[in-house]
Amino acid sequence: MDLSSYLHDKKIIVEKALREICASFVSTPGILRDAMEYMLFSNGKKIRPILAIAACEAKGRNTDDFLPYFCTLEMIHTYSLIHDDLPCVDNDDMRRGRPTCHKAFGEAIAIMAGDGLLTEAFRVLADPRFSERISPKISRQIVFEIAYAAGAEGMVGGQVMDIIYENKEGTKNILHYIHSHKTASMLRAAVRVGALAAGAKARELKHFTRYGDAIGLGFQVMDDILDAEGDEELVGKKLQKDANKQTYVKHYGILASKLKLEQLVDEAVKSIAFLGENGRILEDIAHFIGNRVS
Amino acid sequence: MDLSSYLHDKKIIVEKALREICASFVSTPGILRDAMEYMLFSNGKKIRPILAIAACEAKGRNTDDFLPYFCTLEMIHTYSLIHDDLPCVDNDDMRRGRPTCHKAFGEAIAIMAGDGLLTEAFRVLADPRFSERISPKISRQIVFEIAYAAGAEGMVGGQVMDIIYENKEGTKNILHYIHSHKTASMLRAAVRVGALAAGAKARELKHFTRYGDAIGLGFQVMDDILDAEGDEELVGKKLQKDANKQTYVKHYGILASKLKLEQLVDEAVKSIAFLGENGRILEDIAHFIGNRVS
Repeated sequence: MDLSSYLHDKKIIVEKALREICASFVSTPGILRDAMEYMLFSNGKKIRPILAIAACEAKGRNTDDFLPYFCTLEMIHTYSLIHDDLPCVDNDDMRRGRPTCHKAFGEAIAIMAGDGLLTEAFRVLADPRFSERISPKISRQIVFEIAYAAGAEGMVGGQVMDIIYENKEGTKNILHYIHSHKTASMLRAAVRVGALAAGAKARELKHFTRYGDAIGLGFQVMDDILDAEGDEELVGKKLQKDANKQTYVKHYGILASKLKLEQLVDEAVKSIAFLGENGRILEDIAHFIGNRVS
Repeated sequence: MDLSSYLHDKKIIVEKALREICASFVSTPGILRDAMEYMLFSNGKKIRPILAIAACEAKGRNTDDFLPYFCTLEMIHTYSLIHDDLPCVDNDDMRRGRPTCHKAFGEAIAIMAGDGLLTEAFRVLADPRFSERISPKISRQIVFEIAYAAGAEGMVGGQVMDIIYENKEGTKNILHYIHSHKTASMLRAAVRVGALAAGAKARELKHFTRYGDAIGLGFQVMDDILDAEGDEELVGKKLQKDANKQTYVKHYGILASKLKLEQLVDEAVKSIAFLGENGRILEDIAHFIGNRVS
């Protein structure tokens, strides 16, 4: 199967599982559920759950039981977009070609929609309805993995540094902290969660982690390149707005950024060489991240 | 031991455990950690972790292993205060006698501090450093309990209804939804988490739940009474500002609110009669909630 069919098929599977999760919000106020679903089903790539699926499948494990677990990665990613777009943070009006959550529902509801998605992600990871066939020990490992990647030492920490270094000089170290925490930590977690679900051993997990680190950082370098010279219509948000932020392009220039991206894709591919033919989809995803236009 | 000594001693124990949790944020940006700790150690009553301790002790279980778990209730409560105080939500400048988090750190950092506290709460619940002596099965039950109580069908759902019914007529049903979700659900969860940690059986859990429901609702009714006629200096925040909100006092009047509060305290006390002398602290806490001045 070629990668674009794979991504297409898996995205449908992930969206179906996300719909089932949303259907389990029985007594949620309508407007809150609408706001949560608005961003969850706004035509994102669903790359985090798909990475988890691909890592799990690469180890030969059927992913059906773990689908709701993998979907929590998307719920958390989505909450982070909603909060990042807020007027007092990045103040973005458009996302994926349509108004951001606070533009559509107001700021207060947008904050609550983010809080709801984040909390419900952990509910799903512990809900008997979704974890019946998963051992409590694996559940706990996955909760830790995701919370650590998303929290104050991970994504939120990176976002805070991104905020406080806006309009400041910054250093390459700061840039590296921001990128490896804000974006890469959740992508690395996605790969690791898939591998953990498949029962990967410590040595294998190390390779998966290196792969996740490389594509995670690569994803953000590509974001910086797209911001500098992407097609606004394809990307679906306002571009050239990161001039006051710490970006790869700003610190290294466009050519060195493209070279870095190439190196990261190479590193990702090498890290999973041990999987042989089973790692082909992960390899294709690494190349995809290095070539994406949106 | 009288209740005020009990609350004083347990608050010290809870704050020490919270300090240990904060010490585990190794690579968190300084300003983020400061903002998270600013509200966490702002002289709140720590009533949620204390309720969990009291419920656990009432069942004769030593609580040491579970202290970090019980502290997550305070982390989640604290995040909810930070987000509720934001200008676009309740727009409060003062809390517990000092500037609210966004007044001290700015809005963007306050949002991230809330996100950080919420995420780290779940990290603690799965972190090998804090859950070594707790079975993964009990961990999962507690994660579910807390996430369900805090999420879109619990606290966040209640907060959303509180927001959308501001300056609106509202009904007693709406009022009941808001109060039982916004405040009571986390207090109920605190009691249940303590009971679950102690290995309470289903029948006992039912009684603990009724107790938690009654004191949870009672706590909010008292909040409404304090807003209407409390002492601003003692309460530590601006009062008589809920006139445009759905409150017990608004829908039932001050006397009927006080009567309701009395009934709820009675109901709480009756629900834990089965504990005999072991339930004395929980009984005292119910009376305390019915008489508090801050």
